[in-house]
Parts: sequence; C-alpha cells; structure tokens
Amino acid sequence: MQQDIDVLVHEVGPRDGLQSIKTVFPTGAKLEWIKAEAAAGVPQIQVGSFVRPDLLPQMADSAEVVKEAIRIPGLTVSALVPNLKGAENAIAAGAHQIGVVMSVSEAHNKSNVNRTVDESLEGFRQIVECRNAADPQRKTVISGGLATSFGCTISGPVPVADVMRRAEQLLKLGADRLSVADTVGFANPKQVRDLFDELFRTVGADVAVGAHFHDTRGLGLANAYAAVEAGVRELDSCLGGLGGCPYAPGASGNIVTEDLVFMLEAMGLRTGVDLDALLEVRELMERHLEGEPTQGTFVTAGPPLGFVPASAA
Amino acid sequence: MQQDIDVLVHEVGPRDGLQSIKTVFPTGAKLEWIKAEAAAGVPQIQVGSFVRPDLLPQMADSAEVVKEAIRIPGLTVSALVPNLKGAENAIAAGAHQIGVVMSVSEAHNKSNVNRTVDESLEGFRQIVECRNAADPQRKTVISGGLATSFGCTISGPVPVADVMRRAEQLLKLGADRLSVADTVGFANPKQVRDLFDELFRTVGADVAVGAHFHDTRGLGLANAYAAVEAGVRELDSCLGGLGGCPYAPGASGNIVTEDLVFMLEAMGLRTGVDLDALLEVRELMERHLEGEPTQGTFVTAGPPLGFVPASAA
Repeated sequence: MQQDIDVLVHEVGPRDGLQSIKTVFPTGAKLEWIKAEAAAGVPQIQVGSFVRPDLLPQMADSAEVVKEAIRIPGLTVSALVPNLKGAENAIAAGAHQIGVVMSVSEAHNKSNVNRTVDESLEGFRQIVECRNAADPQRKTVISGGLATSFGCTISGPVPVADVMRRAEQLLKLGADRLSVADTVGFANPKQVRDLFDELFRTVGADVAVGAHFHDTRGLGLANAYAAVEAGVRELDSCLGGLGGCPYAPGASGNIVTEDLVFMLEAMGLRTGVDLDALLEVRELMERHLEGEPTQGTFVTAGPPLGFVPASAA
Repeated sequence: MQQDIDVLVHEVGPRDGLQSIKTVFPTGAKLEWIKAEAAAGVPQIQVGSFVRPDLLPQMADSAEVVKEAIRIPGLTVSALVPNLKGAENAIAAGAHQIGVVMSVSEAHNKSNVNRTVDESLEGFRQIVECRNAADPQRKTVISGGLATSFGCTISGPVPVADVMRRAEQLLKLGADRLSVADTVGFANPKQVRDLFDELFRTVGADVAVGAHFHDTRGLGLANAYAAVEAGVRELDSCLGGLGGCPYAPGASGNIVTEDLVFMLEAMGLRTGVDLDALLEVRELMERHLEGEPTQGTFVTAGPPLGFVPASAA
C-alpha cells in the first residue's frame, strides 16, 4: 500500500462488473477505463479473470489487458484465477497480484467449481508452488479469497469457525494476504464487525485483509464501514456499481466505488482518489455500456457543501 | 419504549414522506396505512404535521388523523409542530408525542422559519409552557429536534459544539427527549458516531435520543448503524423511502423502513416489527401513489436464506 493512503480501494469493475453484464467491452475500452481510473488515483484494479474463454467471453482478453495494465505507473494490477492453469497464465502475463477464491460453504464451492473445499485448498497449494517456482522472489502476490464468508444462497448461515479455519489454512499454505467476501450479499454490519474482530484475533493484526461486499440488501456501505472499524484497510468496489441493479430481482452488484471513496474521504480516511476525476471515468465507462444500468448516489447528489476530502486536506 | 424491543423504529412516512410528494393521500388512505403498519408491529408513527393547510395541503387533515390514530392499541402517535399554534392543536387532538424542530444552523433556521435559533428556542419554551398548562401530567411527550446537526446546504459544516449547546438548551427548557437530524443528507458514519458519543457525554446516557437520517449519498443505513453503535435506540425511517429518489438530483428521502428493520433484526436487535407484514403494508401504501417512485432493496432481494429475525428468535 502507498504510504499516503489510509484505505486501499481495489476497483474490481473490469472483472466483477464486466463479467456480470451482457455488453462485451473491447480490449481498448477496458484499457481506456483502467488507465483513466488509475490516473484518478485508484491504486489497485482487478483487470480480468483467467477463466476459460468459452465460459466467460468478456474475460477472454485478460492476458492482453494485464500485459498493458502493468505498464501504468503506480498501479497494482490484480487478476482473478480459478485454477492452476489460470494462475500460470496470469503470472506469465505479469499480474502483480492474483486472487484465488474458494467458498467457505461446501455446498457453494461444490456448485461453483465442483470441488470440495479441501480439494480447492490443494489447488491453492499447487498455485503457491507454481508461483514460487516461476517467481522465486515472490513478486506476484497471492491473495487467498474466502467466498460466502457471511452466508450462502444454497446452505444458508456459514459458521464463523469455518471461516477462521479456512483463513488459517490459506495462510499456512502460503497466502500473502486474505480477501473475505460477502459473495451473495447476506452480511449485516454487526456480523461484519464481529467476523473481522475474530479474524484479526485468529490470524494476527499484521495480516493484510481485504473485504468484498455486495449491496444486495442495501447494507454494502454499512458493512464497509463496519469492516473499516474492525481494522480492514482494503475494500473491493465497482465503479458505477456495474453489474448490479437493486430493482432487478436476483441481481446484486458490488458496492459503488465513487460512493465508497466519498464515504471514506468524508470519514477522514485518505484513499488517494480524486472524486471529480473518478466521476469522469464513470462517464467514460458508461459510454461503452449498451443499455446496462449503473448505480450510485454520489454521482447525482454530489459532495456536501464545504466538503474537504481527506486526501486533499 | 416497549420492554420487548431493543430499537424503536419511528415511521415518519405519513409526515416526511407524504409532504415530499405530489400525491395527496385522502384521510382514509393515511389511516389505512397507519393502522396496517401499527398492526405489523411498528411501535411509533409520525402521522402528520400541524402546519398551515395552505402551506402544506397534504397535512391539512392532521388533527383528524391524530384523533383516529390514537385509538390504535399500543401505537405511539407523534406529530410535527412548527410553532405554538400547531402545538396547541396537536395536544388538543391528543397526540402522544409532539416533535418541535429547529435548525442548529442559523442560516438554515432563518431560511426555513425566518427566526434566529434563539427565537426558535423561545418558541420552544412557550410550547413547553403550553403543554404544562394544558396537560399538567405531561402525558404529551415533547421531542426537541435538532435539524442540520451534520451540515447545512446553506452554510456548510455545522460545529459539533453548536449541536451540544442547543441540545443542552432544549433539555433545560423542558424537552423530554431529543431528535438529532441529518436533514440534508450530509452525514458520514464516523461523524455520526463521534457526534452521538459526544452528545451522550454532554447530556448523559439516560437521555432518550433519536436519530433521523436521509439517504441522499447512500450512507443512510451506515449512519443508522453508527448511531446504534453509539447507543441511539430510536431511528426515524420511511416505508418504501417515500419522498426520495436517488436518481433525481436534489431529491433525498429518509432511510427505508423495511431495509432498516431488516438490518436491525439481522444484527440481533429486536424491533418488534414483522417484515413480511411490513412488505404488505408497503404494497398497500403504494396503491395510493400516483406515479411516485418508492425505494428500497429488501423488497426485491428478500431475506437471506436461513434468516431468523431477532424479534422471532
């Protein structure tokens, strides 16, 4: 993390946003978006996912996007990888960080990747081994992702003890950092606070931990606040809330980057992001959308009178 | 407050919602809404405002609504009063609680009621005197409202010290409780936490304090959570977020009752409200709207799988 920011905003729109909509962004449009958002001060962007192109055509150019994005000065380029093959390709493309996600819920993991959680952990071990062989200096950071940490659409409540056990296993297997996700938008702020308090007690306060929230039930920013109160210093979000529409049943986007940045800056936490520039990037991104809705309130409400962002203070 | 609830949800839709939209609800429609929402377990409803009927025709029948609403078993009926005349009428109608609001911001108070804040305080004193004369047992509770406590659209930031001073003055003049409002949707959760921490230090933890948030910048529920964390046990909200539309510049509704109830119940805090019944009341209320939008996410997302409301546990 840069020394002059308090909370790292990790833009996941070019991955989580784009993979949830019908419009396929051309590679040039993705890079235009990524470059502009990096220029607005967003320090880390998840630019793609190394999945099979026939499964997710929106992500087919991820290697190309990574190769270009890593040339942007100061930007940490992350990518999602579902398996060893994806990790090899992401590392070969030069991704600074790879996110390897498994579900804490057995039912969700089975449904999603047709593996037990233990099998996913073995896959994670192989990915760490691959990174260590290809990259002995371990410059490619591996983030261990814990999906469905706050509940599962198939099995319901997920025990906190399961999240703790899987977090410890990921770290033992070589995860450089953790990402804890409310994949399906079930979390409430008390649950978030309690889970992260417990996590820092379990793995230690010095482990880098990110949080990933969806705004399915309107609690995304409340959950982000609760996570920050618990000591989380990295949050995933999506410009314009791309990929989610609260008025369409079942759809559920990530928390909105510009609303998150506003909240953090208003709270006195520096993100390094310029809100005016960010709104311009939002417009630029929207130009490529073919009728897909965007979300967010800051874009219409604007800043409160007399607002001074922490990053400008 | 009832013994079996942890947080009192104060529905303000029939006042704050209806006064912000074009549709004029017939008296019968208001009472249908109020009765149904009380039956869903909402313990307190602000049913009207005793303003001049030519200024706010939507509220012209407030006395009639109060007189009927106080016959609903178990419901606390509150009404907003702008001045002595309104207070007299509200007390005569039998309101259980009257809310008397002034702005902490001088500029906002001047613009709103053409008085200095000190003049509004003198008006408040007269209202207390009137209540004490008309109602020696002081059964009509007087809530002292502090508008623009988190910022003002005319003068910008509002010093916390001003909020504290006005809160102390209201209590000294006889306010039975306080209501602290983010009237214009400027607040952020850290500010909310800090202000309520300071308020309870200043006036004592035993003073009943409510909070009133608007969702103008998407932080309404985050602010509600922060208030609860600080010890606030009463929150204003509006069914369906009536009166606000995040996609219309300038419009800004109250936080959404059903989303708030979901958040609190999920956090283990009993509201006494039945969420299923509340959604039915929302439908009933919506039938009377003439093209006015409603807000909220719980209505489409529904409860998480395995969700057990605290009130049902």
